[in-house]
Amino acid sequence: MKKISTASILTLLLCLTHFTWADGNPATAQQRSGSTFKYVELNQIGDPAKVLEVKETMSRSITTGEIRINVLAAPIHPSNLLQISGEYGIDPVLPSTPGSEGIGRVIEVSAEVTQVSMGQLVLLPGMGTWREEIIAPAASVIPLPNLGKLSDEVIEQLSMTAINPLSALLMLTSFVELKEGDWIVQSASNSAVGGYVIQLAKQRGIKTINVVRREGLAEDLKEKGADVVLIDGQDLVQKIGRASNNASISLAIDAVGGETFTRLSESLSNGATLVAYGSMSGKSPILNPAVTIFNDIRIRGFWLSKWFKTATVQEKQAAFGQIIPLVASGALQANIDSRFNVADIKAAVTRAAEKGRNGKVLIVPNTE
Amino acid sequence: MKKISTASILTLLLCLTHFTWADGNPATAQQRSGSTFKYVELNQIGDPAKVLEVKETMSRSITTGEIRINVLAAPIHPSNLLQISGEYGIDPVLPSTPGSEGIGRVIEVSAEVTQVSMGQLVLLPGMGTWREEIIAPAASVIPLPNLGKLSDEVIEQLSMTAINPLSALLMLTSFVELKEGDWIVQSASNSAVGGYVIQLAKQRGIKTINVVRREGLAEDLKEKGADVVLIDGQDLVQKIGRASNNASISLAIDAVGGETFTRLSESLSNGATLVAYGSMSGKSPILNPAVTIFNDIRIRGFWLSKWFKTATVQEKQAAFGQIIPLVASGALQANIDSRFNVADIKAAVTRAAEKGRNGKVLIVPNTE
Repeated sequence: MKKISTASILTLLLCLTHFTWADGNPATAQQRSGSTFKYVELNQIGDPAKVLEVKETMSRSITTGEIRINVLAAPIHPSNLLQISGEYGIDPVLPSTPGSEGIGRVIEVSAEVTQVSMGQLVLLPGMGTWREEIIAPAASVIPLPNLGKLSDEVIEQLSMTAINPLSALLMLTSFVELKEGDWIVQSASNSAVGGYVIQLAKQRGIKTINVVRREGLAEDLKEKGADVVLIDGQDLVQKIGRASNNASISLAIDAVGGETFTRLSESLSNGATLVAYGSMSGKSPILNPAVTIFNDIRIRGFWLSKWFKTATVQEKQAAFGQIIPLVASGALQANIDSRFNVADIKAAVTRAAEKGRNGKVLIVPNTE
Repeated sequence: MKKISTASILTLLLCLTHFTWADGNPATAQQRSGSTFKYVELNQIGDPAKVLEVKETMSRSITTGEIRINVLAAPIHPSNLLQISGEYGIDPVLPSTPGSEGIGRVIEVSAEVTQVSMGQLVLLPGMGTWREEIIAPAASVIPLPNLGKLSDEVIEQLSMTAINPLSALLMLTSFVELKEGDWIVQSASNSAVGGYVIQLAKQRGIKTINVVRREGLAEDLKEKGADVVLIDGQDLVQKIGRASNNASISLAIDAVGGETFTRLSESLSNGATLVAYGSMSGKSPILNPAVTIFNDIRIRGFWLSKWFKTATVQEKQAAFGQIIPLVASGALQANIDSRFNVADIKAAVTRAAEKGRNGKVLIVPNTE
């Protein structure tokens, strides 16, 4: 595993200093204006497989402060599909270009830009990434330090840095003070966030009880570092008690809702917190009033978009400074299910919406 | 309204100093051993009207550190009925003597007791109060300062000091920082706690939206100081918005559960807290995951028993020091529905369990 110091990442993020880019892909300046590229556009809210359109347009010239980026990889998240369907916290302003994160390589910089260089890899948070090319202000990307020649696998993993690993880190660290040897419980453990929670907890010596809704996932999750994997059901609370030897559990993380939420809350110790970040079952979480009132279980929600809006620059740098080295070194990874071109977006979102998948669907607009 | 300084109450509670008692009821020492008194006993969990028994026993002599108290008034709370039915956070250890608070007059003190005097009025928190006489350690009661000759009405109001007004105060002040002009919303507004919330909020210049489940309550609640009274229903969120001119609401207090809980949570501003202290509808609270996740609504429970166990002596003194003068002066009161003798406990709990009541049922074992 490659080692990248947190300090160097932090320095990078803090100073946005100029990097001389010298990995194995020394891209030369390309004047792309005049050529065309494909992108995904949304003109009406609805079923993603029906409403998404693939468009092609002429590249324009970049202007002062802008950079041109070849998008290398961009994930399809459940939140993207929910937003396209109109079931998310914020409806998109139409027409909209979906895709909430990704990674790309800088292929053109305007004269005044000093913080990113030709050929540099950059993260693309919140930038409409399901497209072959992006033109953006240099200040809006997160430049990565020189990590040497990176494999396609690592580049793909880095494309998923800004949302799920960050969510996992923040849910694990922002609500409850956990120390080595403590237990936590989570649902949707085979989701991308679930996998990152397992890996981040393992690195901290925190033990995880991982609830899933079907057989056949335990081996993969245990390989990631899971201590216990349990199938959800009526007797989940008892199973959690047995598996943890009735340990005190002060944090639950739920993305399923319905009765799974109820059972997680019932497995917690007095004064514990349950953090909800989704309701994949489509069912509203049901609160057991006895648990809330007598056991003082606290219910909180987590939404990364809100964190991005309210966190200080220092908080963001600290979080990215923890996550990027772990992803780049391979210590933090998510399963990948399949890869699609921009032109095949309908097939891609159809696959991403299928049950029983065990990994992320990626849009890979360019290969190097 | 009588004025009693908070400082004097605090001094009393802090020092438990000896008081020379000199109100209109200078009881003389009574050696009661040998006479009999009635009390309520519980020998099996079940329907209160069926399982409660009235017993009569001989008074015993008091021993070192003990006092003998004539119980004057003790309320029947919903939590008492729930506990008798086995639906509460703690099951009673059988045989049990129900009744969780009340007021009494000291009619005998053992020689060593200095903190309470003959004839003094004392509050009886958590003492099995549905009975004519209590013998207890002097240190276990809350002695009241000399308030002059008190009417039966004030004595009855003081009998309900230690649970509902305290709960209302703590829910109003422990979770969210409120300032004059702020709005809050609550359900079960015609409950005893609801009425105290209205009165305490009014005294602080906090505006209340009071949700009830039937017509005919608005006048009484507005007399208590309610700013808005609304009937619960599908359009409650819209009604709350209109009534408050879409004010930001940062605290909801719910004792109903079910969809009332959901609607209260949907009426709150981002980052607000909903405190649940009951589920009178018998339906579990349903969480709207969008509200939890996107609006960052925080769900907390409140249980006074836990507060009594975990609060410091200073915190308890501060809370009682705020409440007692308000109750004694008439600034804080609850409606009283009816009064019963200890012998009529079955009729009393039957009445207390009836819907449509608008006040507390009291056990009044002795009149003066």
